[in-house]
Amino acid sequence: MSRYFTEETSMETVNARMGADVDPRLREVMACLVRHLHAFAKEIHLTQEEWEVGIDFLTKTGQICSGERQEFILLSDVLGFSMLVDAINNRRPAGATENTVFGPFHVDGAPVRAMGTCISLDGKGESCLFEGKVIDLHGNPIEGARVDVWSDNADGFYDVQQPGIQPKWNNRGVFVTGKDGAYSFVGIKPVSYPIPDDGPVGKMLGKLGRHPYRPAHMHYLVTADGYQRLVTHTFVGDDAYLESDAVFGVKKSLVAPFERLKDGATLWRSPFDFVLTPVSA
Amino acid sequence: MSRYFTEETSMETVNARMGADVDPRLREVMACLVRHLHAFAKEIHLTQEEWEVGIDFLTKTGQICSGERQEFILLSDVLGFSMLVDAINNRRPAGATENTVFGPFHVDGAPVRAMGTCISLDGKGESCLFEGKVIDLHGNPIEGARVDVWSDNADGFYDVQQPGIQPKWNNRGVFVTGKDGAYSFVGIKPVSYPIPDDGPVGKMLGKLGRHPYRPAHMHYLVTADGYQRLVTHTFVGDDAYLESDAVFGVKKSLVAPFERLKDGATLWRSPFDFVLTPVSA
Ligand SMILES: [Fe+2]
Ligand SMILES: [Fe+2]
Repeated sequence: MSRYFTEETSMETVNARMGADVDPRLREVMACLVRHLHAFAKEIHLTQEEWEVGIDFLTKTGQICSGERQEFILLSDVLGFSMLVDAINNRRPAGATENTVFGPFHVDGAPVRAMGTCISLDGKGESCLFEGKVIDLHGNPIEGARVDVWSDNADGFYDVQQPGIQPKWNNRGVFVTGKDGAYSFVGIKPVSYPIPDDGPVGKMLGKLGRHPYRPAHMHYLVTADGYQRLVTHTFVGDDAYLESDAVFGVKKSLVAPFERLKDGATLWRSPFDFVLTPVSA
Repeated sequence: MSRYFTEETSMETVNARMGADVDPRLREVMACLVRHLHAFAKEIHLTQEEWEVGIDFLTKTGQICSGERQEFILLSDVLGFSMLVDAINNRRPAGATENTVFGPFHVDGAPVRAMGTCISLDGKGESCLFEGKVIDLHGNPIEGARVDVWSDNADGFYDVQQPGIQPKWNNRGVFVTGKDGAYSFVGIKPVSYPIPDDGPVGKMLGKLGRHPYRPAHMHYLVTADGYQRLVTHTFVGDDAYLESDAVFGVKKSLVAPFERLKDGATLWRSPFDFVLTPVSA
């Protein structure tokens, strides 16, 4: 093969340029990326003007990134790429609770709270009892599991999006299971919210005829010694955006019941069991 | 198909989300991009950590971009993507001069100069006579063709990279052909130079065991009424980087003779004819 570039041999020419001492995995990943990027341009017959639009889009996406804003993760999210990477790396046996995207709003160090505690500190929203068990694939309770939970408030904002407006650790908490594997806490029935759509990614969604909303969900990070880290949400089953999550986070198995309670101060109850997969599986 | 995301149907789920009124070409390009991006992640089994490295790389690449620096174009260049887009959009009949990348150093408005003029204004480098004809596919001379030329100086820098150091319009000029289609000017025998390698793209090249050099070349933009715009270089045939151009710009047909002259003030002569393709071809 000539070392000169031709349209026909473009992928091979570029990949043959890598040196002899390149990390083997890096070589493999880059070669695969180049093949798919070139195949894309060839298949679609990308024009010079479209290439310029793409360069401009990527540049603006990078330039809006800051310590508080990660527009490239947002781009990955809305293209289903984040969910795909999550899925590929978290294939689980039947019966195990499925993963979904982590999202940008988790905060390390939320207070560990007693079972049954209310985590909604701003007095807004419809109260909801979340309860269930953390169990293994055989249904046995897991003791000492950490159930780290977080959700938006009734206005659709996480506390970290509204510092000074929401109380610190509003709608967040960590619950550690006892011998029975049970967890319970009172939060609010979450509400749907838009991802940040005032940047290049939001503009792109607009051109693609897509809305920026995520269906209402409660976030969970469930960890226990000997088990795979579970990053997931439970979704409110009657949400209007359930089948059009802007970041494709919904899985059928993660849609949870939200039952209206008849009496008492708490308005809703959402039962859900988390089935952890052993590390070895 | 379920509207919920699964690893198996990831591409279809994402692409089915586009609205009904999306521009047809945008729909086609985005669907193709999503298919190839997802295929890449699936084929290579991209890990979460690798995804993070990718997000970080894209973010840094965007953040270094400014009015003076375009790191995403550089990225496209070193992946052979710019050359591929150029090739796809400039397929020409046999015998026609081939295109290559435009590069970032062209400046509009260079002075129109008389045939034979010397464009090297800083007195550096080995003088070289560039001459030839602008002709059509049948060998007939093209009158009124604009031959816009630019090169680096003997230190490997374009004038715009060294404002205040190099004279303005150093190694640049526009020559307009007469009835005979001939052009000629005196410049220097160009020298090889590195692309900017102090950013994320340079770091990437290092990890891939690649150098950042471009083989020595003279840039040409040749235009004439009724003919396709020709963006090309001629390359110095004995350059050490000829088979490893960092941006894959070399084509065999663009390697030009550089003949050592026996006497006179000019040291080299590089003859090259530009064969233009009609707009209709
Ligand atoms: Fe969320
Ligand atoms: Fe150049």
